[in-house]
Amino acid sequence: MPGDSRAAGTHRSRPSSSQEPPDLEDQDLLLAAAYVSDAQYNRNVPFETSPQAIRLYHFYNHWTMRAATYFFIWLDLALALFEEPAVFPLPFLVTSVAEVLCLTAFFGRLVHFAKVTPQKVFWKDTKNICVMVTIVLTLIDLVIYASLEAVNIRGVRWSRALRPVFLINFPESRQIRRAFRSIRNTLPDILYVFLLFLFSMMIFSLMALKLFGDRGLRTVEGSPYFTNVLDIAFELYVLVTTANSPDVMMPAYELNWWYSLYFITYIIINTYLFMSVFLAVVYNNYRKHLKNEIHTLACLKRHKMTEAFNILKVKVGTAFVVKEARWRQLVKVVAPDISSSHLELLLRISDEGQTGHVDKMNFLRLADLLNIRVVAVNIKRHPLETWMPRVYQSSTSLLVQKMVQHRIFVWVYDVIILINTIFIALDEKDSLISYAEWLFLSLYIIEILLKLYTYEPRAYFGRNQFWNWFDTLIIMAALLATVANTTIQARKYSSQQILDIVLILRILRLLRVIVSIQRFRVIVTTLINIGPTMLTFGGLVLVVYYAFAIIGMEAFHGKVQFLDPGSGSPDALVCGNPALKDSAFARGRYCKNNFNDLASSLILLTELTVVNQWHILADGFALVTHQAAKLYFIGFHIVVVILIVNIFIAFILEAFFVAYSLEKSEVETAIEKKIQELGVGVQEEEVQDGGLIDHMDIKDSGFSADDGDNRKKALKGLYFRIASKKYKTVDTLLQQMFESEIAPEGKDPSLEETLNFSPKKPNFGNSA
Amino acid sequence: MPGDSRAAGTHRSRPSSSQEPPDLEDQDLLLAAAYVSDAQYNRNVPFETSPQAIRLYHFYNHWTMRAATYFFIWLDLALALFEEPAVFPLPFLVTSVAEVLCLTAFFGRLVHFAKVTPQKVFWKDTKNICVMVTIVLTLIDLVIYASLEAVNIRGVRWSRALRPVFLINFPESRQIRRAFRSIRNTLPDILYVFLLFLFSMMIFSLMALKLFGDRGLRTVEGSPYFTNVLDIAFELYVLVTTANSPDVMMPAYELNWWYSLYFITYIIINTYLFMSVFLAVVYNNYRKHLKNEIHTLACLKRHKMTEAFNILKVKVGTAFVVKEARWRQLVKVVAPDISSSHLELLLRISDEGQTGHVDKMNFLRLADLLNIRVVAVNIKRHPLETWMPRVYQSSTSLLVQKMVQHRIFVWVYDVIILINTIFIALDEKDSLISYAEWLFLSLYIIEILLKLYTYEPRAYFGRNQFWNWFDTLIIMAALLATVANTTIQARKYSSQQILDIVLILRILRLLRVIVSIQRFRVIVTTLINIGPTMLTFGGLVLVVYYAFAIIGMEAFHGKVQFLDPGSGSPDALVCGNPALKDSAFARGRYCKNNFNDLASSLILLTELTVVNQWHILADGFALVTHQAAKLYFIGFHIVVVILIVNIFIAFILEAFFVAYSLEKSEVETAIEKKIQELGVGVQEEEVQDGGLIDHMDIKDSGFSADDGDNRKKALKGLYFRIASKKYKTVDTLLQQMFESEIAPEGKDPSLEETLNFSPKKPNFGNSA
Repeated sequence: MPGDSRAAGTHRSRPSSSQEPPDLEDQDLLLAAAYVSDAQYNRNVPFETSPQAIRLYHFYNHWTMRAATYFFIWLDLALALFEEPAVFPLPFLVTSVAEVLCLTAFFGRLVHFAKVTPQKVFWKDTKNICVMVTIVLTLIDLVIYASLEAVNIRGVRWSRALRPVFLINFPESRQIRRAFRSIRNTLPDILYVFLLFLFSMMIFSLMALKLFGDRGLRTVEGSPYFTNVLDIAFELYVLVTTANSPDVMMPAYELNWWYSLYFITYIIINTYLFMSVFLAVVYNNYRKHLKNEIHTLACLKRHKMTEAFNILKVKVGTAFVVKEARWRQLVKVVAPDISSSHLELLLRISDEGQTGHVDKMNFLRLADLLNIRVVAVNIKRHPLETWMPRVYQSSTSLLVQKMVQHRIFVWVYDVIILINTIFIALDEKDSLISYAEWLFLSLYIIEILLKLYTYEPRAYFGRNQFWNWFDTLIIMAALLATVANTTIQARKYSSQQILDIVLILRILRLLRVIVSIQRFRVIVTTLINIGPTMLTFGGLVLVVYYAFAIIGMEAFHGKVQFLDPGSGSPDALVCGNPALKDSAFARGRYCKNNFNDLASSLILLTELTVVNQWHILADGFALVTHQAAKLYFIGFHIVVVILIVNIFIAFILEAFFVAYSLEKSEVETAIEKKIQELGVGVQEEEVQDGGLIDHMDIKDSGFSADDGDNRKKALKGLYFRIASKKYKTVDTLLQQMFESEIAPEGKDPSLEETLNFSPKKPNFGNSA
Repeated sequence: MPGDSRAAGTHRSRPSSSQEPPDLEDQDLLLAAAYVSDAQYNRNVPFETSPQAIRLYHFYNHWTMRAATYFFIWLDLALALFEEPAVFPLPFLVTSVAEVLCLTAFFGRLVHFAKVTPQKVFWKDTKNICVMVTIVLTLIDLVIYASLEAVNIRGVRWSRALRPVFLINFPESRQIRRAFRSIRNTLPDILYVFLLFLFSMMIFSLMALKLFGDRGLRTVEGSPYFTNVLDIAFELYVLVTTANSPDVMMPAYELNWWYSLYFITYIIINTYLFMSVFLAVVYNNYRKHLKNEIHTLACLKRHKMTEAFNILKVKVGTAFVVKEARWRQLVKVVAPDISSSHLELLLRISDEGQTGHVDKMNFLRLADLLNIRVVAVNIKRHPLETWMPRVYQSSTSLLVQKMVQHRIFVWVYDVIILINTIFIALDEKDSLISYAEWLFLSLYIIEILLKLYTYEPRAYFGRNQFWNWFDTLIIMAALLATVANTTIQARKYSSQQILDIVLILRILRLLRVIVSIQRFRVIVTTLINIGPTMLTFGGLVLVVYYAFAIIGMEAFHGKVQFLDPGSGSPDALVCGNPALKDSAFARGRYCKNNFNDLASSLILLTELTVVNQWHILADGFALVTHQAAKLYFIGFHIVVVILIVNIFIAFILEAFFVAYSLEKSEVETAIEKKIQELGVGVQEEEVQDGGLIDHMDIKDSGFSADDGDNRKKALKGLYFRIASKKYKTVDTLLQQMFESEIAPEGKDPSLEETLNFSPKKPNFGNSA
């Protein structure tokens, strides 16, 4: 048991300030801390963890080690930029040495992890096995490639497609792994719908062959229309993505309008019905799976907290409780950085009757309590008021302040932005307009200065005052841009890139309009809230794109070339490949869409994700290689558009529904109630309302107050509030939703029961 | 009060056999019947309804009147086929007389409705006002057009776009009205997201103008690239629909790959993020609104049932109850066609203790009880077994029966279908293959005969044996098609249409594969279940399409013409309009996509719904008329794709979620329990399992059994089961979901409370 606690207990240092959802580790930490506390308190329980092991563990979790791991992961991925076909070519020797270096680093990290993890746990974890297998495969590939290179045969660096494995399988990418698990669990259900969809496509293909095959129809390009069943199937698959509508229908439609009914039926069944069913199946599974996982996590948390309670409990009267002193010690161990006033607040909530001990129910929610960010609010006077009270309180000054706080002030500036927009849209070469630029800029700066005069500066730039920061940063950027622009124009120096950035920054200034319209702010805030989780999708998309890009580069690089059309070379019109003569690919001037380096490949894959014209791209690459090349493009479509984009939509829908049904959790309500009871609360509405904070200094509860028995003193002069619920992550909200469904107090499910709750035991990260 | 009951009480004759969700009218009927029953039973309550009024009401609701109304609605809509620009031209005199005839019919229907409705209710209903205003407007338009025609000026028949109003506003189109209400309620929320979306588009347009405007870039067609801010905005709007990706990006991308980031950012923000947010907002509102409406309906039902109970109740002991005799009378009034055994079953459920009276709780669920279709199952022997038992029970016969019931029998036929598919795909002109056709057909017919030999024929073609019917119909159609084909080929006669239908029917035979794969059947059953509600969307789409088609025909007819390219006329290449020279529209041979008659217009609008290439169509019509024509296409996109398609997706998602979480309702469970208790139940699984029913005759509870006190006798030899829950409509499921949320027994909400539940009082059909 102590060995267990050693492994699980010490690898996360500051749970209370973390914005992440309270995952397993917090409970592990508390459980371990309970052991530690028990040992320190009683001085008689044997505690066998060697200090060396703990040091090793701390070192494993040190930020430098993590940063180094990430550095090597990104280096490994970035190697594709320098390997043939390269954006910036480097000799094979350099890239292979770099790759071996990365592999060594990964291996070292793995060995280190093995040292701090029990053998059994380490070898049971598929992550570790995956990483090891990938390392071995990459080495084998490197050796084969190098030996072939030595005898001048060009091999295929297939192992490069495996590189994202390192990104997925390191413990820190928990979210990406969860998304992949979600996809894996959806697959069986999707499969049957997909088969039915293929079947329906086949039936329609046969019909098309019989209906149109013998008519001698020709497409716009003059090629035979619907004569080969495989071509028809491809065309109809493209029609599902809508990319060749209405062109594919025109020859038949010209013959008889009656035939358009065939295509309309096909579109209704396959495009609208089946694609909606795909979304429904993906969404349903996503939600089910998420619920299962979070439910399991929540049950496990409850279980561990109960275990920790059982270690620390003593019997007082008829009930088991935890003594106040031990509770304090535990919290200090778990959250060493906690301020004493914060600690007092938590104790007041946990020990409501001030009986000197915490009962089971209150103890169980300790992990949640620690996870809620309580912000200490310090009401302060404006510095100007302190320095020169008479001037600041004069009637002129008060009038200015009142004016700034008035609604009309906001409206006036909205009109100014509107006029500014028109000026930006007009040609700026006119000197009058470029002078006007300066006028607008100074107006904006005056606005910010006026606001700083009215509101307390530290409150105005408080931690959660996102919109104030946004506003100021945009103006600063625009100021910089305008200054830079003038300088550049004055010196007749023109770097295109800098000029472009300047232009964009100046236009971004218009985003200020969002700040002043409340409804827009709400929408944007919701979008920003789901931002972090959207990064998970970024990771997911990166992994899939990278693998497909590597495969695409191996298969298609150099087949299509972009030659400057200005050179007048006849090859420029057919992208350097005569096979493309008269193709829609060449006619659309798509030569730049190729797999000749990583950047081009990624851009091309983005175009394929957007779907439109993907069949022309697929046809182009099929012409320069082989018809089977279309399979690559169809595969990409199935993986990215049918699976990942649908999961993305499912995620957005779920996030919006959660945001719509936003309510405070039971624990938060308890804290808030206590804060109000103690009379140290701030109405959240006052604080939240944009720039209208009055003379308040908000900072995280990191101030130093005297630690002691005098609780009243510690809380005196301070106000608390719960950090805005608007800035919670979706995960936290989901967890909150599902936690209320867990069996109430007293009916604790057993650990076995909990783990068998979901059909498959989920992957618990490195602490399982 | 009696007047009220007259209006509401008698206009629905057989609620028990209806598959529709239990809506308001059932409760109205019950309430009214309670009055009637009370009158008949006590013979002392005055009942003032004149027989004439009731006859008028019955006449209003007679099926011939309803059919006539629908006929005139469709005639009115179909007039567009015969009016200029017409598919089948008719003189103005004929169409205008037909239209006046329709209007007279609508007016007559309205007057009839006014006669059977209380004045106050009639004039409060916006539906009636709408119909009247539309009639008047149409008449005015007709008069103006005719007078202009008389002096040879061609007017605009603008009132034609209003015709769908009749379809929406007649009482029978409740579902379409609900969909429109749902859209109306979504609008305010959608509006803000849309404004933000427009704002973001504007910012990006300005950026594009600054970044690319001065570069002198040219598109593939050679026109200037991104020089006019309005053109840019249109291009970017098209990019949101993905229709011009990646073409719109290529000129900038060729200049520098860096610029592709601009477009990728734009696509991520506007295409993926905003379009998902639109879906989320529409979906969320759809769900909220649906829940509100169904909640209100359910509360109203509860209220009316309570009122009916209060009329009929008598005090027995301490509780109020309804006597058995009155209960029977009530049910007989409400459902005159109910069989006595069915009635006995319901009584047994309602009067559990056989106390001779029904308590309040059981009375309240009477409407639900009547709405559940109970099927009487009559277990019968195979007719052959009755006629020649010795032969049928012989060992050979039993072996055949066992063989047919075996899994391998199904597999063998799956393989046969597979081989058949390959034969169909091959060229059928080969005589060997055309003989093989006969072989396959006879194999299929033998299969059906064998099944009929093994299973009881009436059971095999039972009411809910959808898949058996499906199977047989497909084979019969294929048989007919093959015979027809042979006849046609023998006589050297070839009608293209008949040949096409024959071909399609023969290929549809392959759908049999679905029957034999269980997982496919489940998916298809779900899709079929949501079919009826999907027809609502059909109506909704029809209304919008019709209005847009009429506007489109008035604005664009004759501008683009399809001339046979075989004629060699130079005009054929530019669709008969020189303005289209060198346009993408003419190059894509899109001449057939025009507004020259209703059929073409509807097909064109379908193409616009599919979205791809819609900008080329819009550009084409803008070239032949005016740039402002693009607004028509953008408007259509916003209404159909952003609103209606999203509501469609929301509906499919919701329907699937409901289907996934399918559970029996509380009332159904009670009935089933009672059926089991009485020992007259059939295991639903046995009956449901496709063709594996053994010697059972299922018919609706319409058999004649002796009516009397001997209940045992009435139930003897009969088995009951609840009609499959798989074939319920989504509405019923939703109602079931929300009903459980209503306050339980004893806490009846008042009517006022109920009606104020939703912010706006919903439209209660003609009974409000």
